[in-house]
Amino acid sequence: MVNLDISKFKYGTYKLKTGFAKMQKNGVVMDVTNPEQALIAEESGAVAVMALERVPADIRAQGSVARMADPLIIEKIMDAVSIPVMAKVRIGHFVEAQVLESLGVDMIDESEVVTPADPFYHINKNKFNIPFVCGCRNLGEAVRRIWEGAAMIRTKGEAGTGNIIEAIRHQRMLNNMIRFLKIMDENEIYDLARKYSDSYLDAIKILTGEKIKDETLLFDEYNYRIVLKEISKILNEIKQIQRLPVVNFAAGGIATPSDAAIMMQLGSDGVFVGSGIFKSENPEKRARAIVQAVTHYDKPEIIADISKNIGNAMVGIEIDNIPKEQRLQERGW
Amino acid sequence: MVNLDISKFKYGTYKLKTGFAKMQKNGVVMDVTNPEQALIAEESGAVAVMALERVPADIRAQGSVARMADPLIIEKIMDAVSIPVMAKVRIGHFVEAQVLESLGVDMIDESEVVTPADPFYHINKNKFNIPFVCGCRNLGEAVRRIWEGAAMIRTKGEAGTGNIIEAIRHQRMLNNMIRFLKIMDENEIYDLARKYSDSYLDAIKILTGEKIKDETLLFDEYNYRIVLKEISKILNEIKQIQRLPVVNFAAGGIATPSDAAIMMQLGSDGVFVGSGIFKSENPEKRARAIVQAVTHYDKPEIIADISKNIGNAMVGIEIDNIPKEQRLQERGW
Repeated sequence: MVNLDISKFKYGTYKLKTGFAKMQKNGVVMDVTNPEQALIAEESGAVAVMALERVPADIRAQGSVARMADPLIIEKIMDAVSIPVMAKVRIGHFVEAQVLESLGVDMIDESEVVTPADPFYHINKNKFNIPFVCGCRNLGEAVRRIWEGAAMIRTKGEAGTGNIIEAIRHQRMLNNMIRFLKIMDENEIYDLARKYSDSYLDAIKILTGEKIKDETLLFDEYNYRIVLKEISKILNEIKQIQRLPVVNFAAGGIATPSDAAIMMQLGSDGVFVGSGIFKSENPEKRARAIVQAVTHYDKPEIIADISKNIGNAMVGIEIDNIPKEQRLQERGW
Repeated sequence: MVNLDISKFKYGTYKLKTGFAKMQKNGVVMDVTNPEQALIAEESGAVAVMALERVPADIRAQGSVARMADPLIIEKIMDAVSIPVMAKVRIGHFVEAQVLESLGVDMIDESEVVTPADPFYHINKNKFNIPFVCGCRNLGEAVRRIWEGAAMIRTKGEAGTGNIIEAIRHQRMLNNMIRFLKIMDENEIYDLARKYSDSYLDAIKILTGEKIKDETLLFDEYNYRIVLKEISKILNEIKQIQRLPVVNFAAGGIATPSDAAIMMQLGSDGVFVGSGIFKSENPEKRARAIVQAVTHYDKPEIIADISKNIGNAMVGIEIDNIPKEQRLQERGW
């Protein structure tokens, strides 16, 4: 039963948190670093903006530590637009998340695009009233984030490259594993849940420097056996409904209207665009075109039309030229 | 039976799609990036032009992401010339292909020259009414593309280098394997089909992270056993007719009339020329000479004559100096 306490209309129970995420469906969320960009995003039809310090292409070019944006800038962005404002925190940095919650932002992105803060744990998102979105490369990562309380999942892609191949990789990894669940029986799903839960156990092993003899050992506030049971339950639900139980967006490398549309045709519920807009020749035109492409993702004539004369896309980077340890998608586990 | 529905005269059944490809036989298709170049190509006697964002030599020099050209430029090229217009899409980017189909271009090149979009699948070309051309390095790649619905095959060569060695490598790989089929019996051909089909199975293994126990497993909309049977059928046809069942062009590194002629003498049905023309000293003269060379490929006196005083060829690159991971021919599988 949904708790309809009005003060919890936006924040609160898991159902309300995922409900907020669902309201973004079929929409485009745009990265912005200041109120001016936020206004461009709103006017272009973005369903929400993502406030961050620097767009991924700049973070990548500068190679420095990236963190939550200045709260003053976030507040200015919130004042500037009437659409929801999301903001990024570092993986595991639950205090940055507390700060954003206290500012009243609408959703937090625990993001591999900013520099990770905790080598062992992602944020326990169940402890928060504010909804979170998290990145994933495959079903295992998605299921762990959902277990931790994420209300929305997105592909990681390879942010800041303008190269769609990694987002397609991650969406296909999800799709095919979800399809594969169909032919798995109860025992096989339990084995898979064990495989997916192991990264939590691995963290404990590193933290204690000991082999775990007793799997009932607590980590943070959870018990491995409970984790296993709950991840197994999530997998069985996914098997049943043949999709993630939360909204699933595409992100990382989307640079053209066709890129946005292909992600929608592959089953994404919406799209995040970062560097792809503000590193292109004409951000206003391109932002509007990408919003249109998400709405009309299965109408090639419309996509052809809106793709005309929108200026050059961001230059982009060949991913083969980025060493593996510098790829943002390798962050998180 | 050919479906003679008049609206499907150009697009439509496999027979009509390959028929269109056959109309290009003994011709030269030239890469162009704007209407001015397209007009030069047409006046030089090109059978068709290939619209793209940048010629391969420039993509290579810039090292950035290359995508489908702006639909507005493609339309301007279509308006400028009366010969067929082809255009390039990224490997696996089926939305870029939908966009080109809706624009009414005559053929799509699913090309390794632009940045690949899907790490697992090439476009399912059978789903389209428009004909596709695809690159190959060997018989396995050719047969997989034909199974996926390609109406025309071309060598990959090493585009943007002005260096013919890789196109010759790929044409000889094809020729010799086709000859070798002659002495293979039914079982050996079935084994070869299995080898050629394995890359599809490998994709599923990666996508699910699981060992495939059941080879009837669906991937996308296909069943491995059916793939195997159909690829086996294609190989038997090739054994019979001793050539590919579709038109087979040379591409990648052709820079001189002699280059075009050697590919024709090695069994190519026609030639694609990219950077070789518009990176040379005198594109008009060279384009005309290459067209003549394809027509008179077995008449050395004529080739000698048309090779005179056509200005310097494109400078080109020694392929040994390009790291393997930066070679365009390594894209696709």
